[in-house]
Amino acid sequence: MKTLPLEKALTFIEPGPLTLVTTFDGKKPNVMTISWTAALDFNQHILLVTGPWNYSFDALLKTKECVVCLPGPALLKKAVQVGMISGETEDKFKKLRIKTYPAKKVKAPLLAGCVACLECRVTDYIKKYGFVILQVMEVWHNERCRDKRLVHAVGDGTFTADGEHFNLRALMKEKLPPGL
Amino acid sequence: MKTLPLEKALTFIEPGPLTLVTTFDGKKPNVMTISWTAALDFNQHILLVTGPWNYSFDALLKTKECVVCLPGPALLKKAVQVGMISGETEDKFKKLRIKTYPAKKVKAPLLAGCVACLECRVTDYIKKYGFVILQVMEVWHNERCRDKRLVHAVGDGTFTADGEHFNLRALMKEKLPPGL
Repeated sequence: MKTLPLEKALTFIEPGPLTLVTTFDGKKPNVMTISWTAALDFNQHILLVTGPWNYSFDALLKTKECVVCLPGPALLKKAVQVGMISGETEDKFKKLRIKTYPAKKVKAPLLAGCVACLECRVTDYIKKYGFVILQVMEVWHNERCRDKRLVHAVGDGTFTADGEHFNLRALMKEKLPPGL
Repeated sequence: MKTLPLEKALTFIEPGPLTLVTTFDGKKPNVMTISWTAALDFNQHILLVTGPWNYSFDALLKTKECVVCLPGPALLKKAVQVGMISGETEDKFKKLRIKTYPAKKVKAPLLAGCVACLECRVTDYIKKYGFVILQVMEVWHNERCRDKRLVHAVGDGTFTADGEHFNLRALMKEKLPPGL
């Protein structure tokens, strides 16, 4: 994977994709599937909505670090399986044969085969809503990933991959943030 | 448009689509384009990230009502144009030839031609992050909309429409919420 300028983080989160979020609790890594996310600004702040029902949640808040990974269609089935077993009792990486790479700025790992991975630090947590505010520290792009379509959870057990692409840059050029 | 059970609201927001949010300030309706949204729970709470840079923001907080509409590809160009002009100086509906229908539970209008429209009440606002928490009150689905693909903003002036569909319900049946 290759790093990209930080501004590119937005282009992986704004589309609203399914994400795989890795953590490292000091002993072992873990990964959770999160679909409830949002872009927050043009300064690489992003939102995860999660809570103590995820075993990784503790590690996320304690270490204040994670990697938000974007699976393509090739990893979709594994992404669903990640959400169906618990890291408390199983080694998800071993069981689901998911390879990892070391990250640069955090101890949580990058996931092999993903379209992109965003190394993040937790900057705030709003317990009432399970809002975890993240600052993206590093953006990795997997140029060798054959199928770079992002996938979106519909919420009913079905998913869609990115389809037709539309370029409306000319219409909104006055409002495009720098670097995008 | 026909109403759907409230549980279906999630299936229009969880995929992370571009939205058009209508308001009514007591005198006239307005509409803004918002891409920074998230699903929050299985009780029809959803999140918009916005702020005073949107002219409709005042009306949204004062009336505590809006309609979150999901444009398909046919309305994408207009959705971008909605974001490029201000309701303070222009009547966006007239200028962009966007038709509206009365909603059932709020005074903000439904937008004709959208894939779906969610009537919402504002239940909370977190100023620090521009978080507007909404409770969906009514779900409208446009059965006659020819192209029901949702569209996703990439953040760089390009957009994608929903493409290939994957059904993984069997894999995650234990975790599917009731009604979905």
